[in-house]
Amino acid sequence: MRYKCTCMYDGTLFHGFQTQVGVNSIQEEIEKALFIIHKKQITIHPSGRTDSGVHAIGQVFHFDSDIDMGEWNMQNAINSRIDKAIYLTKVEKVGREFHSRKSSISKEYHYLIDFGEFNPLNRNYRFYCTSKNVDKRKFIAAFSVFVGEHDFKSFSKTSNKENTVREIFSIDFEEISSLIKIKIIGNGFLHNQIRILVAMALEVGMSKISIEDLKAIMDAKNRRLAPKIAPPNGLYLFKVNY
Amino acid sequence: MRYKCTCMYDGTLFHGFQTQVGVNSIQEEIEKALFIIHKKQITIHPSGRTDSGVHAIGQVFHFDSDIDMGEWNMQNAINSRIDKAIYLTKVEKVGREFHSRKSSISKEYHYLIDFGEFNPLNRNYRFYCTSKNVDKRKFIAAFSVFVGEHDFKSFSKTSNKENTVREIFSIDFEEISSLIKIKIIGNGFLHNQIRILVAMALEVGMSKISIEDLKAIMDAKNRRLAPKIAPPNGLYLFKVNY
Repeated sequence: MRYKCTCMYDGTLFHGFQTQVGVNSIQEEIEKALFIIHKKQITIHPSGRTDSGVHAIGQVFHFDSDIDMGEWNMQNAINSRIDKAIYLTKVEKVGREFHSRKSSISKEYHYLIDFGEFNPLNRNYRFYCTSKNVDKRKFIAAFSVFVGEHDFKSFSKTSNKENTVREIFSIDFEEISSLIKIKIIGNGFLHNQIRILVAMALEVGMSKISIEDLKAIMDAKNRRLAPKIAPPNGLYLFKVNY
Repeated sequence: MRYKCTCMYDGTLFHGFQTQVGVNSIQEEIEKALFIIHKKQITIHPSGRTDSGVHAIGQVFHFDSDIDMGEWNMQNAINSRIDKAIYLTKVEKVGREFHSRKSSISKEYHYLIDFGEFNPLNRNYRFYCTSKNVDKRKFIAAFSVFVGEHDFKSFSKTSNKENTVREIFSIDFEEISSLIKIKIIGNGFLHNQIRILVAMALEVGMSKISIEDLKAIMDAKNRRLAPKIAPPNGLYLFKVNY
């Protein structure tokens, strides 16, 4: 019996999704609940990891179980046993051919950047950009460089062997007073890619580099040319599409 | 030199405003910064305490200092030395006749209650009411009992000696889909008063008691008749008026 689960989480107090020795993770928290339910270790498989401090609105994972329980009952059984920083919004029984990572066709991430006055109530949920000389139009325009199929090697933290070609289908923007919500949909993303893209677009917005420079950095396929990274607290895994 | 400071804070990780031995407080955090700036202990005086988990958008405190510094410089000096969960939005030099608590003529509190699906990203910032049988119209109507000058003894955690008569000037409501924001303005509030008022209005909303029962409980001046209390995480000290 394979269960597909969709979940939200506040990444603030976790050291990312994946279990690591000595620190708490979202995976460990969910597997602890599954251990209580199954009385044995159950491993969950996410659509992808998220880093420490990164949030999720629609992360997906699956696991295999020998317990045949109603979807709603399984959702409640897990939700009642996990930290309130994590919440399953949906549980579905799926066939063995479904795989959270391999079956996904695209992912949508949101990044929240705020150019207004700092608000401590939002400090873990958006990036407050303190630079006063950002041209928002130039910042937004810079993202056009990233749309399409490109080798994003310059904009990721990856090993040399990994294939770094990815396609970004669309990047849209929503402005709510001083806040800009950046919505990025692509067929997959490299480690740290979105946070690096945001930081490099900000370099353009601050007129430290031009759009042409940004293109040249992408073409050079060299991370050393794009050494900036935006903080994790503005990033949300919004949706995984199958 | 007296400084009046307006501040916001996320009350989640603090044990309330006031310094208590062995736990962290907002007062202690601010006084630590003032100690660094003044190289001696400076005591701050708030408009009133807030409990553990309660937030502020416009809390006010004052302190006396022998340092004559620009308002903007003092604001930055403090903000750069305190936990990011606290943020001063304004610093003003005021005369000795100003007192954060004694000079205040009214206060506005907001309470956020959400009847929709739980969202872990908001868990510390609103009360998720899980009861499914709340009549929102009855819940809102119940608050009319509280408007005006009343003895709120039944609805507060106070010593017997304290004068428990207070005036509530207005209670307004803002509905944003499943969320109700309750805006209460009064000349002053007793300990736990707003959280008890919200919980008792909810009893009316759930038809456990009638509006007439609620009036009778107020008239009885007995806390034992109003034993409910809403959680602190939905409460915000929004503004102090002088």
